[in-house]
Amino acid sequence: MPHPDRRDALRDLLIPAGLDALLVTDLLDVRYLTGFTGSNAAVVVGTGATDLLCTDGRYRIQAAEQCPDLQTVIDRPSAPAAAASVPPGRALGYDSATLTVDGLAAIRDAVPGRRLRRAPGLVTRLRTRKDAGEVAAIRAACELADTALGELLDAGGLVPGRTEREVALDLDDRMRRLGAVGPSFETILAAGEHSAVPHHRPTEAVLRRGDLVKIDFGATLDGYHSDTTRTFCLGPAADWQRELHALVDAAAAAGRTALADGAAVPGVDGAAREVIEQAGFGEQFPHGLGHGVGLAVHEAPWLGRSGTGSIAAGQVVTVEPGVYLQGRGGVRIEDTLHVVPDGPAVPLTTLPRELIEV
Amino acid sequence: MPHPDRRDALRDLLIPAGLDALLVTDLLDVRYLTGFTGSNAAVVVGTGATDLLCTDGRYRIQAAEQCPDLQTVIDRPSAPAAAASVPPGRALGYDSATLTVDGLAAIRDAVPGRRLRRAPGLVTRLRTRKDAGEVAAIRAACELADTALGELLDAGGLVPGRTEREVALDLDDRMRRLGAVGPSFETILAAGEHSAVPHHRPTEAVLRRGDLVKIDFGATLDGYHSDTTRTFCLGPAADWQRELHALVDAAAAAGRTALADGAAVPGVDGAAREVIEQAGFGEQFPHGLGHGVGLAVHEAPWLGRSGTGSIAAGQVVTVEPGVYLQGRGGVRIEDTLHVVPDGPAVPLTTLPRELIEV
Repeated sequence: MPHPDRRDALRDLLIPAGLDALLVTDLLDVRYLTGFTGSNAAVVVGTGATDLLCTDGRYRIQAAEQCPDLQTVIDRPSAPAAAASVPPGRALGYDSATLTVDGLAAIRDAVPGRRLRRAPGLVTRLRTRKDAGEVAAIRAACELADTALGELLDAGGLVPGRTEREVALDLDDRMRRLGAVGPSFETILAAGEHSAVPHHRPTEAVLRRGDLVKIDFGATLDGYHSDTTRTFCLGPAADWQRELHALVDAAAAAGRTALADGAAVPGVDGAAREVIEQAGFGEQFPHGLGHGVGLAVHEAPWLGRSGTGSIAAGQVVTVEPGVYLQGRGGVRIEDTLHVVPDGPAVPLTTLPRELIEV
Repeated sequence: MPHPDRRDALRDLLIPAGLDALLVTDLLDVRYLTGFTGSNAAVVVGTGATDLLCTDGRYRIQAAEQCPDLQTVIDRPSAPAAAASVPPGRALGYDSATLTVDGLAAIRDAVPGRRLRRAPGLVTRLRTRKDAGEVAAIRAACELADTALGELLDAGGLVPGRTEREVALDLDDRMRRLGAVGPSFETILAAGEHSAVPHHRPTEAVLRRGDLVKIDFGATLDGYHSDTTRTFCLGPAADWQRELHALVDAAAAAGRTALADGAAVPGVDGAAREVIEQAGFGEQFPHGLGHGVGLAVHEAPWLGRSGTGSIAAGQVVTVEPGVYLQGRGGVRIEDTLHVVPDGPAVPLTTLPRELIEV
């Protein structure tokens, strides 16, 4: 969707929210609405006036190239300068979920007497529903990342004797060679008992035969992200490893089945969690089921047991249950899926899910 | 400095600030004070009670390993849960420079009637003065990154015919092979007229003989960062390129000379800026002179013409003037330096600064 159309969609949210204009300060929100990718900017989108981008002198050329359709002001600090463009008497909203307390104070100082209104999450609401171009971008990132892991496996890159860090570097390099700007987050490569640490950072630990190896990774491509987790076994799996993997696989399948337009968020989490709880491992699944993926690799909606609201068509979210047995090992299986109007959500990640004994 | 000593140093700042305790919510502040590296946490440091770390179930094992000396609570959202540990009647500060408006509201809701006090930048103040271990970590990151660029040059990696993106990938790979977790930020590799864009992102543009090539890059190592910029010429430099480089080199030297314990921040920026303004290029130097480097690659202190305060021994900051001629090319020269009690600041970056014609 062209950026002006996104700003029009935001405009449609302003009047019901009682706002004449919105001050946008989160940089990913700015990018979503304008295409601008610099590290400092603020945008004003209003109901009755020209939209405006404010950034600083480092980005004069870049702003002109990326946002030729937008009035641009070069000034800093950029948020107060952008706010000052809104005439007195207008109700100016700000995103209280991302603006800092001091950031708000600086804006109040710059536009004394203005009607500033708390308005969290308006752009977030738009960003959670991906348009066709965004889904294509996330799909491309998923395919790239999954191809990289497939190539690593084909090349014999996941074997006893290498360190966690070596394998993680190998995977990151392959993603970059395939065109990724970089990993979407620091690749989690956790072998043996490290696999029981949900967010383990790769170490110099050497992979050993019999280890479970959990790999959680993603690629950044054109500003969008992917997120996949697979858990492997180095050599033939022991019974407990096979059973643990089958349990998490069943939970993931239940979560994917529950993930549909209109489903209540806690119900989606609950569908997967119930499988794990009934097997007696509820305590060993200490995190939510998933999260949205887009311009941020972790973004709304948040799928947890205390989540609120409903799943909606257009959302792209992960389903990633895990069970972690401290001191022994853990399994997580994660896919990124696109919620569609009818039928089950469509996986954008492409790797097979059965336990692979390498 | 051991983490408990850092928390004691923070404690010493609480009483003059009228606080009984500080709620720390910024994740790099948390890491600085406790060593905890997870993606969700809050810490309370108090004058009369045990310090406390709050995180969620994903990090139970990691928190126990990284912070064996700290009382740990597993709960989320973690900031309100941590705040609730402070008894009523105590003055609890929060960092208004990093806490969001909604984050503060959630804390108010969780601890109704508590005395919450705006207390920006207390941990920042500690973080700006690096201890010996931190300086060693930044020095190691600088040496690693600069070695990577040196190897790339020696290997003939900077030549006409390669694309900006190829060279940037090559440099990033070399940093990672040398042990970096990754680049500190997306490597800026800007050739020809792209070098006139201060924060250019590498493209498929092919490097050509006669181009200025600006490379701004850094390495992440053990949580700390480096930041270096050098500008090269592909083949013999034209007179205007040589003169531009000499001008920026002179400005950088003036900035480094002015960078000393006790110097006023605007004066340091001004020392470099004056050189460029006197040559008639003031408008073409559209950014501040530098910034602090530490757990964040861009952090306080901020060295700009509107900066406040003074430089202090222990700070690690960049000096990075640039002149950008739109449509022709630009030059930036950047070093990361350690401010010491006596004498000139010590460069931690190691590359030669003269114009290299490759």
